[in-house]
Amino acid sequence: MDAGNDFQLRLKRWRERCEQQLERVLDSRDRLTQRLHEAMRYSTLGGGKRLRPVLVYCTGEALGADAAALDNAAAAVELIHVYSLVHDDLPAMDDDDLRRGRPTCHKAFDEGTAVLVGDALQALAFEVLAGNDDSHLAPALRLAQLRALAYGIGVYGMAGGQAIDLAAVGSTLDAPSLETMHRRKTGALIEASVRLGALGAGLASGAQFDALARYGAELGLAFQIHDDVLDVAGDAAQLGKLTGADAARGKPTYPSLHGLEAAQALALHHRDQALAALTPLGERATTLRQLAHYVVDRNN
Amino acid sequence: MDAGNDFQLRLKRWRERCEQQLERVLDSRDRLTQRLHEAMRYSTLGGGKRLRPVLVYCTGEALGADAAALDNAAAAVELIHVYSLVHDDLPAMDDDDLRRGRPTCHKAFDEGTAVLVGDALQALAFEVLAGNDDSHLAPALRLAQLRALAYGIGVYGMAGGQAIDLAAVGSTLDAPSLETMHRRKTGALIEASVRLGALGAGLASGAQFDALARYGAELGLAFQIHDDVLDVAGDAAQLGKLTGADAARGKPTYPSLHGLEAAQALALHHRDQALAALTPLGERATTLRQLAHYVVDRNN
Repeated sequence: MDAGNDFQLRLKRWRERCEQQLERVLDSRDRLTQRLHEAMRYSTLGGGKRLRPVLVYCTGEALGADAAALDNAAAAVELIHVYSLVHDDLPAMDDDDLRRGRPTCHKAFDEGTAVLVGDALQALAFEVLAGNDDSHLAPALRLAQLRALAYGIGVYGMAGGQAIDLAAVGSTLDAPSLETMHRRKTGALIEASVRLGALGAGLASGAQFDALARYGAELGLAFQIHDDVLDVAGDAAQLGKLTGADAARGKPTYPSLHGLEAAQALALHHRDQALAALTPLGERATTLRQLAHYVVDRNN
Repeated sequence: MDAGNDFQLRLKRWRERCEQQLERVLDSRDRLTQRLHEAMRYSTLGGGKRLRPVLVYCTGEALGADAAALDNAAAAVELIHVYSLVHDDLPAMDDDDLRRGRPTCHKAFDEGTAVLVGDALQALAFEVLAGNDDSHLAPALRLAQLRALAYGIGVYGMAGGQAIDLAAVGSTLDAPSLETMHRRKTGALIEASVRLGALGAGLASGAQFDALARYGAELGLAFQIHDDVLDVAGDAAQLGKLTGADAARGKPTYPSLHGLEAAQALALHHRDQALAALTPLGERATTLRQLAHYVVDRNN
C-alpha cells in the first residue's frame, strides 16, 4: 500500500472515531429540551472534514499518546468548530442558507434555537474537556488544555477574528490585518487543536511543544487562505455551499487583496512554514506532514 | 451597627471587589477588536446586582477562604450571566430594547456584535476560571470548578432552561415543567456560583457541600419566581426594564400559572427551603441567610 492510500485510511479511521465521540457526548433522552438537542445533533453530526479532531489525534499519536486519552479533546474542538459555524451562519452574521449541502441550523430550525445551539455547544465542549474521567490525564495537563482552548476561541482567537471579519465587510483591510484576521478566525482553533493533542500526550512545554504550536498556526493560516481560494475557484457541489459568497458580501479575502494566483502561492508558503516547523519532530511527524499537504490540496 | 446595615456594607464591599475583577479581565488595548471589546465592556460594566459573584464570595468566606482565591470564580460567573443576558435580549430571543436602564447590546451596537459579545464572554469566563495563576487553588479543585460551571450553563442548566422558555412562548407549561425551566434557566448558574465558592475554599464533597448546593438551587428558584412577580408587580423605573413584558410575550410564569399571591408565597417557600438547607453550616452561614432574605425582598 502506498503512503497516500495509507494516509487516507488513517484519516478515515480518525474521522470515524470522532463521529463515535460526538455521538457519545450528544446522547440525551431529556424530553423538555428535545428540539434544542435535535438541533445540536443536526448541526454537529451532518458530516464535515473533522480536521480539528484529526489534528488532536495525529499530534497526540505522533507523541505516543493512547487514542482514548485524546477522545475528549477531539470532541471538544469539533463542538467548538460547529458552534462557530452555526453562529457565523446567522442572518446577523454571514446570513448563509446552506452548509455542508443542507439548510443551515437557523433555516432548518429557527434563529433563537440556532443562537442556543451555539451557546450550548460551547458549554458542552468545556464540559467534555473538563470531564469526570481523571484516569487518562493529570489535572494540571487538563487545566492547560482548557486554558489553550479558551484562549484560542476568545478575543485573541476565534471570536476576535470573527469580530474583525464583521467590521471589515464592505471595507478593505491591509495585508497584515487580513493575516491577523485569518490567524485568529481560523488559525487559533487549529493551533489549539495541535496544543490539545500535545498536552494529551503529556507534552506541555519545550522546543517540541513550541514547534508543534507553530506548525498549527501556519497550518491554520494555510487552511483559511485555501478556503478563500476555494470560494473563488472551487466547485459549489463539492463544497456543499455557494461559491463567490465572500465577494458578493464585500469581504476582504486573500484573492481579493492579492489576486488568485498570489493567494494560492501564499497558501503553499504557509504550508511550507508548517512543514519547516516540524523538523525537530523527525520521523514521528509523518502524518502531520501529510495533513499539511492535504489542507492545501483539498477541493472542499 | 445593626445586622441589616452590616449586611448592606458587606454586599457593597463584595460588589466593588467584583467590579475591580471585571475591570481587570476586560482590560485590553487590542486595536483590531476595539468595537467588540467596547461592547463587552458596555454590557458587563453597566451595573447589575452581581448576585452570582456575591454568592461565590459569601460561600467561600463562610468556609474560611481568602477573597483572592475566589476572584477568578466570581468574575467567571458574572461574565457568564452577562453573556446570557446579551443573547436573551436578541430579537430572535426575548427582543428586549432596555436592560439596566440602558439600550441593550444589540441596540447600542448591532446584532452581529451582540452575538459575538456573548460568545466571547462565555470563552473569557472559562479562560479566567482556568487562569494561569496556580497559587491559590489545586488543579483538581479548579477542574471541579470548571466542570460545575460548564454543567450549570449547558443543556441541563442555563441553555436548556432558555430552550424550554423559547419553546413555551404562547403555550402553557404544567407546574413541574415551569419549575424545571426556572431551575435550569436561573437556578443552575446560581447553584453553580455556590459550588464554585465552596470549591474555592477547598470543600469539594460531603454533607456540607451537598447542603450548600441545595441552598443554591432553592435560592435560585426563589430568585426567579420573585423576578416573575416583579415583572407583574414591580416598578419599571427601579427595575431598569419594562414591566409586564412576560405577559405581553405570552410567557408562562409563576404569576400566570398560580396567580400573584400564590407565586409570592412560593418564592418565600423556596427561600425557606434554602434557609433550611443551611442548618449543617451553623453560625458560619449568617451572610448566606441574609442573602436568602434579600433575594425575595429586593425590588429590582
